[in-house]
Amino acid sequence: MTSQAFQDDRAHVFHSWSAQRALAPAVVVGGEGAWFWTEDDTRYLDFSSQLVNLNMGHQHPRVVAAIQEQAAALCTVAPSFGNAARSEAARLIADLAPGDLSHVFFTNGGTEANEHAVRMARLATGRHKILAAYRSYHGATTGSITLTGDPRRWPNEPAMPGVVRFFGPYPYRSPFHAESEAQESERALAHLDEVFTLEGPQTIAAVILETVVGTNGILVPPDGYLAGVRELCDRHGVLLICDEVMSGFGRCGEWFAVDRWNVAPDLITFAKGVNSGYVPLGGVVLGPRVYETFAERAYPGGLTYSGHPLACAAAVATINAMKDEGINERVRRLGEEVVRPRLAKLQERHPSVGDVRGLGLFWAIELVKDRATREMLVPYNAAGEAAKPMLEVAAACKAQGVWPFTHFNRLHVVPPCVTTEKDLSNGLDVIDDALDVADRYYTGS
Amino acid sequence: MTSQAFQDDRAHVFHSWSAQRALAPAVVVGGEGAWFWTEDDTRYLDFSSQLVNLNMGHQHPRVVAAIQEQAAALCTVAPSFGNAARSEAARLIADLAPGDLSHVFFTNGGTEANEHAVRMARLATGRHKILAAYRSYHGATTGSITLTGDPRRWPNEPAMPGVVRFFGPYPYRSPFHAESEAQESERALAHLDEVFTLEGPQTIAAVILETVVGTNGILVPPDGYLAGVRELCDRHGVLLICDEVMSGFGRCGEWFAVDRWNVAPDLITFAKGVNSGYVPLGGVVLGPRVYETFAERAYPGGLTYSGHPLACAAAVATINAMKDEGINERVRRLGEEVVRPRLAKLQERHPSVGDVRGLGLFWAIELVKDRATREMLVPYNAAGEAAKPMLEVAAACKAQGVWPFTHFNRLHVVPPCVTTEKDLSNGLDVIDDALDVADRYYTGS
Ligand SMILES: Cc1ncc(COP(=O)(O)O)c(C=O)c1O
Ligand SMILES: Cc1ncc(COP(=O)(O)O)c(C=O)c1O
Repeated sequence: MTSQAFQDDRAHVFHSWSAQRALAPAVVVGGEGAWFWTEDDTRYLDFSSQLVNLNMGHQHPRVVAAIQEQAAALCTVAPSFGNAARSEAARLIADLAPGDLSHVFFTNGGTEANEHAVRMARLATGRHKILAAYRSYHGATTGSITLTGDPRRWPNEPAMPGVVRFFGPYPYRSPFHAESEAQESERALAHLDEVFTLEGPQTIAAVILETVVGTNGILVPPDGYLAGVRELCDRHGVLLICDEVMSGFGRCGEWFAVDRWNVAPDLITFAKGVNSGYVPLGGVVLGPRVYETFAERAYPGGLTYSGHPLACAAAVATINAMKDEGINERVRRLGEEVVRPRLAKLQERHPSVGDVRGLGLFWAIELVKDRATREMLVPYNAAGEAAKPMLEVAAACKAQGVWPFTHFNRLHVVPPCVTTEKDLSNGLDVIDDALDVADRYYTGS
Repeated sequence: MTSQAFQDDRAHVFHSWSAQRALAPAVVVGGEGAWFWTEDDTRYLDFSSQLVNLNMGHQHPRVVAAIQEQAAALCTVAPSFGNAARSEAARLIADLAPGDLSHVFFTNGGTEANEHAVRMARLATGRHKILAAYRSYHGATTGSITLTGDPRRWPNEPAMPGVVRFFGPYPYRSPFHAESEAQESERALAHLDEVFTLEGPQTIAAVILETVVGTNGILVPPDGYLAGVRELCDRHGVLLICDEVMSGFGRCGEWFAVDRWNVAPDLITFAKGVNSGYVPLGGVVLGPRVYETFAERAYPGGLTYSGHPLACAAAVATINAMKDEGINERVRRLGEEVVRPRLAKLQERHPSVGDVRGLGLFWAIELVKDRATREMLVPYNAAGEAAKPMLEVAAACKAQGVWPFTHFNRLHVVPPCVTTEKDLSNGLDVIDDALDVADRYYTGS
């Protein structure tokens, strides 16, 4: 006997990124903090933060109350009006943003934020090209999927003209044959500089990158890289767009991941953590350089729900709760004192663990068949039978009550920022066990 | 003394579609039914339904309660899970949809819905071209703004490749020199047929159109037109996408405006009225023809908040309230018994009223300088000084407490579907007075 919710799902819901027929989604009926449970009363420790958005965990009482109060007061107004919830959310976000970033254009989510950031950059500079990185994800609408440097772009091409691709730093699989983090940073900057030269710097509106690359590997930029990109952009009048949809609002133990390196982009895009996804919200933070170009001429973009009061009220409550609970300090501490040493141990114990990397509560365990060759445990973009080893690792986590986040040959450790230290530790124990499954596919010596 | 909300807005909120500096948004603090009020206690009768999304009016108690209850139970889950609110919303929408449309892919709003509908059509047919109409609006992300047939597209070009433009019917300013509605329909179909021939039907994935064109003029298709488009598409294996973001869920006195003509598209996109915009939500309704092509291969698209429980719970409550309150019957009756005769009178009384048209609570008053030449009261896409006459008409409405919707040389009458008959009548009185302002610019004889 399946539930009505399950039956209706199979009969009427079309799911993201999936072949539809074989789906059998777990029906989630409740959650609290880092835990959620399904209709058959199975409880899971959420090591994926849903889609790495649930930074404050499920059902944070202050955020729930704020949504209920705003719903009672006023659910929605059109973007052209003023509204207290929207104003306050914009002020809080602008106050947290680095450099001279002062204004917020609100959207419903991450992809729209990147679409509008690119439009602003093009119009503000009068230039057309956008440089975007391989191994990135920026969203699924036509503009953002073109910016995306992973296979999700492929079935959607040709899409938006004017996007040029570059390689970002990835020390473990260096595209530049670098042998240290410092060399990786230096060579990645030299590569970007060369792309600038060959594309014609005066044709480039912006560089867009994920401050810390998320789904495509939790690639933390080596020290010096972001400052170097900033300097290169400044030299050529190119705007820097940092996509912090996944890396912002606590995930890296910072309000914005760029804070870690003291770099101020011209545009920051955000979503997810800003209100933990309790109500759809995203946006672009911009400063005078972009603002002034739209002070007297109209910005040609918008959406019906820009600055939605319910979403903004959830953001205000989330940000205030994060401040009061010292979330960023907590995340930095857990990252350095708990996760980093534990993953180092896993790497010692499990031959299949080729690399571990991350910061805050944003970590990747990269699995290989052979440490010497660094051959991936499953091939790039593997599906079906070829992906089996990773599916088995994921199944082993679920069997022990931990809901994992896997992508290609990686297991990401991205629990809510409110996960208790004990749950975090227990979850890492489960991953430790699950990696035995990966070790069975190890072919190296 | 301005309020904190106003000051924060000016200092930190970047608004849609506007030059930023001179904005002085009215700060809305509350609303009920067809009314809202600002912080200085001015009450307005909302003849715009915000952005033509607030079909059930402000603060409908059942929808507010549903949001509060869902917030208490579970604000969000990732799209890959099942969830009762999402399942129920999908079932209700699929049950209301025409033909064999069975599944719903949920998005955050209208533009994403069109982006995904186009992607589905391209992949389902293996063809690339999309035919889109002049005088249309489909959203502001790269794909949807390219589909858009109004000036909002201009600053955003070049955008998505593969979009081909055609003319839809517009009897009052017939692109086909037609002299009757029947002739307009016939000639518009002949035109579309010719575009098919000249583009190569086998290269065309889909035709997208607004069932009733909204912002670009409330252009109601003459009887026979939609059926003719359907037939043309069928003849060539081309999919028909109907954008019902504005026309659906009560606006036309139907669940979907296509119901009025008994036409079943392959894909319907919706947003706005589905939950009156209380929580951002949109989506695509699709049938077996599209579904089956993604039964075994993955659909390459998604978004973090697809099928958001809070948004879906608001949709369930909205749809149930619409059913229980007989909203569609009410809207049809008000449209035919109140609005149509009243607008006919306005047209008699005011020389500047060149045309009135619409259905349900979806009406346009088209203003001209001269009835003989049909010269528009303000030029196409007028801004600044050239737009003054329309700004004055709008100001005259606001001065008498009616918040109007104006676009180019038109005043739209698009109040919430729950507007009382008395308020509707009073609002039309205000418009009657405001049209005296337009008459002053009349130059005809
Ligand atoms: C870095 C990054 N940018 C953009 C997006 C797209 O956001 P959304 O799914 O809200 O459109 C995502 C989503 O995972 C992301 O991780
Ligand atoms: C017909 C139509 N399609 C699409 C859209 C875009 O919807 P959204 O603003 O939710 O992206 C609109 C918005 O006005 C619309 O009227």
